[in-house]
Amino acid sequence: MLTFEWPVRVYYEDTDAGGIVYYANYLKFLERGRTEWLRSLGIEQDTWLAHGIGFVVRQVHLELLQPARFNDELIVTVVVERLGRASVVFAQQVTRRDGTVLCQAQVKAACVQFGQPGDAVKAVPMPPAILEVLQRAN
Amino acid sequence: MLTFEWPVRVYYEDTDAGGIVYYANYLKFLERGRTEWLRSLGIEQDTWLAHGIGFVVRQVHLELLQPARFNDELIVTVVVERLGRASVVFAQQVTRRDGTVLCQAQVKAACVQFGQPGDAVKAVPMPPAILEVLQRAN
Amino acid sequence: MLTFEWPVRVYYEDTDAGGIVYYANYLKFLERGRTEWLRSLGIEQDTWLAHGIGFVVRQVHLELLQPARFNDELIVTVVVERLGRASVVFAQQVTRRDGTVLCQAQVKAACVQFGQPGDAVKAVPMPPAILEVLQRAN
Amino acid sequence: MLTFEWPVRVYYEDTDAGGIVYYANYLKFLERGRTEWLRSLGIEQDTWLAHGIGFVVRQVHLELLQPARFNDELIVTVVVERLGRASVVFAQQVTRRDGTVLCQAQVKAACVQFGQPGDAVKAVPMPPAILEVLQRAN
Repeated sequence: MLTFEWPVRVYYEDTDAGGIVYYANYLKFLERGRTEWLRSLGIEQDTWLAHGIGFVVRQVHLELLQPARFNDELIVTVVVERLGRASVVFAQQVTRRDGTVLCQAQVKAACVQFGQPGDAVKAVPMPPAILEVLQRAN
Repeated sequence: MLTFEWPVRVYYEDTDAGGIVYYANYLKFLERGRTEWLRSLGIEQDTWLAHGIGFVVRQVHLELLQPARFNDELIVTVVVERLGRASVVFAQQVTRRDGTVLCQAQVKAACVQFGQPGDAVKAVPMPPAILEVLQRAN
Repeated sequence: MLTFEWPVRVYYEDTDAGGIVYYANYLKFLERGRTEWLRSLGIEQDTWLAHGIGFVVRQVHLELLQPARFNDELIVTVVVERLGRASVVFAQQVTRRDGTVLCQAQVKAACVQFGQPGDAVKAVPMPPAILEVLQRAN
Repeated sequence: MLTFEWPVRVYYEDTDAGGIVYYANYLKFLERGRTEWLRSLGIEQDTWLAHGIGFVVRQVHLELLQPARFNDELIVTVVVERLGRASVVFAQQVTRRDGTVLCQAQVKAACVQFGQPGDAVKAVPMPPAILEVLQRAN
């Protein structure tokens, strides 16, 4: 299983008055990594969203080991830890360019059908076109 | 014409590494004010969004006079400057509790029909049920 | 041990193209709850930040059970699960007004000394003035 | 005068329940452009921030012509419209890859000295090392 890597630069928008990256923003970085990993496999989420299909995060375990700072160059990694028919569990890291691990995460994302505004968001099995790509990549 | 006021507290999420509120976040505060002003008139935007109707900002003029800081208690004000059939121009301020004006803004919002993901966002006249409420409030 | 409650309204800023609250934003809501809980005990974090003292989140376990939507009125709850000399573990929930639990979280925050930009962020014991208040509240 | 260009990808984090990029987030994109333009000239803002020197936005005029959407590839452009001793006025655009202009902005940023938390943010002339680089680039 390959590790996918995606670079992220820390801008003012990502920091807080403590001078470090605000903790919620790691979840943004982690998702950019997953989005780009899907794109690298040929899966463009906007095409699927037009059919009401998307991924929704169900569980996050996040360990923040060292703070990232304004201007840091970070690397987000993506590894599939477990692939189900309706969900994926990712193991992810955010590291600094010098190799220091800043953040470790386990993220479970489930496939859903969004429907109209006001409708329930329903868990559904992944469409075969997505599942097969993920199985082949694993 | 009355001035509508809405309180906003500055949290860590709103600040940046300069120790002050990040400039984009004033646009969030200003929109919370407009949303609560609409609500005070009985207009709940989620009900309209379920029919694909919403407001989209077309123009913003923003003057940032003094920085807001972590933990500050702010007041967002909302005044309708001009009411059209398809758009509204707001004059808004963000002040500190001590009365210091931190930010002055003029915001033009247009009524739109959202449609399905992928569809164009079309400018439309406000539904009469909204327009009449805004006219009466003015 | 009392449960502290803090209301949060969902604005456009909190949602994403799936029509629901973006997952990272729950961490913002949870932190607003912790900040207001500290405030309710008389601890204003900006006063401490002026001395370089703050809390940094080290661990988050997040379960997202049901999506929150634009305009929802949410309640964030805060309970201290474990109080150490240098860190606090919180059990938190985000519920809808109708009582539905949308999100469950365990958050570990550690006391740190921030120092100048560029300096390391050092874990430190809580100042007695903070620790005593938290012990009394527990 | 050259036009500096910086690519920006739209992620879920940037969108809202209307299915389009949330208006405040254009200010983030515009600032990424300015930060990368400064970097391209050899000015790293974190180095200056360690001396308490930074840029703060004073004025923004923003025209939102067409909405950007999830997954769009955008280009942010940066042109210096006016260079003073203590401030810079930028003309900026956000365009889609197909050349459609989505957003036009004029942004005035002033040089400031940040000081300690709680201190005032003071307008100061740009340090010569910054001013000379900007003059040469113009």
